Amino acid sequence: MKAEVIAVGTELLLGHIPNTNAQWISEVLAETGVDVMFHTTVGDNLGRLSVTVGSALQRCDAVIITGGLGPTHDDLTREAIAEATGRELVSDPALEEWLQALFESRGRRMAPANLRQAMLPVGAESIPNGLGTAPGISLEIDGRWIFAVPGVPAEMKPMITDFVAPRLASMAGGAVLVSRTLKAAGIGESDLAQRIAPTIESLERGGSATIALLASAGEVRVRITAKAQTREAALESIAPVEEDVRSRLGSLIFGADEEKLEGVIAAMATQRQITISVAESFTGGLVASRLVSIPGASSFFRGGYIAYSPEMKEGILGVAPELVAKGVVSGEVAVAMAEGARERTGTTVALATTGEAGPVPASASIGTVFIALAHEGGSVVRSFIAPGHRDMIRRWGAQAALNMLRLWLLGEIT
Amino acid sequence: MKAEVIAVGTELLLGHIPNTNAQWISEVLAETGVDVMFHTTVGDNLGRLSVTVGSALQRCDAVIITGGLGPTHDDLTREAIAEATGRELVSDPALEEWLQALFESRGRRMAPANLRQAMLPVGAESIPNGLGTAPGISLEIDGRWIFAVPGVPAEMKPMITDFVAPRLASMAGGAVLVSRTLKAAGIGESDLAQRIAPTIESLERGGSATIALLASAGEVRVRITAKAQTREAALESIAPVEEDVRSRLGSLIFGADEEKLEGVIAAMATQRQITISVAESFTGGLVASRLVSIPGASSFFRGGYIAYSPEMKEGILGVAPELVAKGVVSGEVAVAMAEGARERTGTTVALATTGEAGPVPASASIGTVFIALAHEGGSVVRSFIAPGHRDMIRRWGAQAALNMLRLWLLGEIT
Repeated sequence: MKAEVIAVGTELLLGHIPNTNAQWISEVLAETGVDVMFHTTVGDNLGRLSVTVGSALQRCDAVIITGGLGPTHDDLTREAIAEATGRELVSDPALEEWLQALFESRGRRMAPANLRQAMLPVGAESIPNGLGTAPGISLEIDGRWIFAVPGVPAEMKPMITDFVAPRLASMAGGAVLVSRTLKAAGIGESDLAQRIAPTIESLERGGSATIALLASAGEVRVRITAKAQTREAALESIAPVEEDVRSRLGSLIFGADEEKLEGVIAAMATQRQITISVAESFTGGLVASRLVSIPGASSFFRGGYIAYSPEMKEGILGVAPELVAKGVVSGEVAVAMAEGARERTGTTVALATTGEAGPVPASASIGTVFIALAHEGGSVVRSFIAPGHRDMIRRWGAQAALNMLRLWLLGEIT
Repeated sequence: MKAEVIAVGTELLLGHIPNTNAQWISEVLAETGVDVMFHTTVGDNLGRLSVTVGSALQRCDAVIITGGLGPTHDDLTREAIAEATGRELVSDPALEEWLQALFESRGRRMAPANLRQAMLPVGAESIPNGLGTAPGISLEIDGRWIFAVPGVPAEMKPMITDFVAPRLASMAGGAVLVSRTLKAAGIGESDLAQRIAPTIESLERGGSATIALLASAGEVRVRITAKAQTREAALESIAPVEEDVRSRLGSLIFGADEEKLEGVIAAMATQRQITISVAESFTGGLVASRLVSIPGASSFFRGGYIAYSPEMKEGILGVAPELVAKGVVSGEVAVAMAEGARERTGTTVALATTGEAGPVPASASIGTVFIALAHEGGSVVRSFIAPGHRDMIRRWGAQAALNMLRLWLLGEIT
């Protein structure tokens, strides 16, 4: 089944916003077994929009339109569908009633313009909108389908997942594309590729799944994708590949799909009643902020120090002046910061970071990072050179510090 | 002059990546006076790609294609242009030589496949690529133009700004669209709209510029856009509107275009040799991290405390136990945190945050935020209810704290 996604809005053509709706809808359709052949973006212009809808109907089995369903004179998707299909627009009494009730429940008076949103092309069905005043449109034309949903992502997404995707899935009846993403930390992209080279090569010789690698600051994602008749069958193709990749990467993998490093740490720390504090220099709050981002962080995270200046490292963390004098980007300073934070906060474990993020090197070459972890039995320190500019070096440092904590929680660092 | 932007790549249709190239190119073209009428995305398929190029040539004066110029068999933009225009592909000796030299200078042997990148449709000119091995293509067909550039943003962007945009500008010879964005903090979108309502109304009655408002956590942007024959003339239309908006909003506006709140603070603090520290609870490092993100932060930022747990507020910041016992989300606690941080760090000023980010309300209703600032002469505190979920409440709190510091630096809060 072939589909075209049409995004409506002059602001997209002016480059004011990216077309993330088309991306999101395409991801959902791929999982539904629909092949998206084209994305088209068109402005708020009736002529161009109806021509676009018409040509999409000629080359695809399903046309998904997002945007242009609001109550203003700029919202022309209803009219364009009517024009492209030769169907008249008529007011739907049930929709009129629903709109009226919606405004009443919000204590607002309905403007006459809103009645436009009760209009449907003859033969069309409305798609319920649980969050806004713009109902969607579902219309069959000679075995081909048009689905129109609003452009507001919060309204559009449930309408696609609850209404459009299930209909398309039952029509498609074909193959679905399913992906599973494993996330690794503490290893670079090329080293990881080398470790799983046998897996990749055997899949290339003929396998039911493919592998793609994606790298960001301190994280490499391994995406395994399979195509099959059903979601279950695709997952069955993915499972042995995932097992193989996991056996080759071991604890380098910290999670899958939507899991985050800080979430994995939160789960382990909460379960084992371990408390955490931080002492951050160049990361300047990034480590703490990621831990605090987890709902329920107060069960494991206590707080800590941002010791950005050398005076703070000495004054509030008790790093020895002779260490600071030798340069604040060192393993000794990182360890002293972690130990100072642990002593002062009384937590099970403390994480520290010190590094040179640039743009002007002060006491070490740009990208130099030291991370340390202090626990009851002692402390550990690691060092590496992070690539990129200030922002990336800082994100890389925070990621490495969190990964060090994860490995300590796993008992792999002692 | 009308243009269509075609993005080539199956990964776009699968939703793996957003089409940020089309957005970026559209922004540049708008400033160049070109009206972008359509964005089209098509996969790595010769038939569909050549049909797409052909229909774009029929409906627009300029077609900008991004992607599909690499050396592999999946890269089909050259062939599609040749097919759509009926021009033969021939190897360009100068490009062959350039490619050969490029590989030699990198100490690599050129694969035969790379010679495909020296092919051009008859009559085409190559667009220099300063960063990669894929030259672009510029071709005139009966007064209409095709420009093809790679999909890698780092290579594509200079090729558009240095080659494509100047050519289009001289051909367009028409109006250019220029925007200027003023950024405000400490006011909501609807209050801001009310304050500048006279400006908006007078522009709607007929003016040479338009205004659009865009809101995010704790920030409202006022975008003023003007169309004119030249960039200079557009800026002349914008200037009086900007002046009018600024006079109505005063110090609510903290910057323009790419300026950030933390950057504005950094400039003021550095110039006046003011030092800053923080004591963060629910923002958990967000305030510090934004200040540290500014290159040269060490000249004004010293560090501070993340006092997430009540014990930390008492133990490391010296907040009185009786205050903590009454609940940590209060103005008194915020002030005590700021004063504690200022005393311990010896900075000119200290900022503190305490609030309830949810998801479960502990000591105040979700969204309650207190921010405080301690200085030599005393301290100030503000409170508000932030909307949204945990992440947005935290970002809103950090933004408000930084804005409080900015207003103090301006002498508007004492």
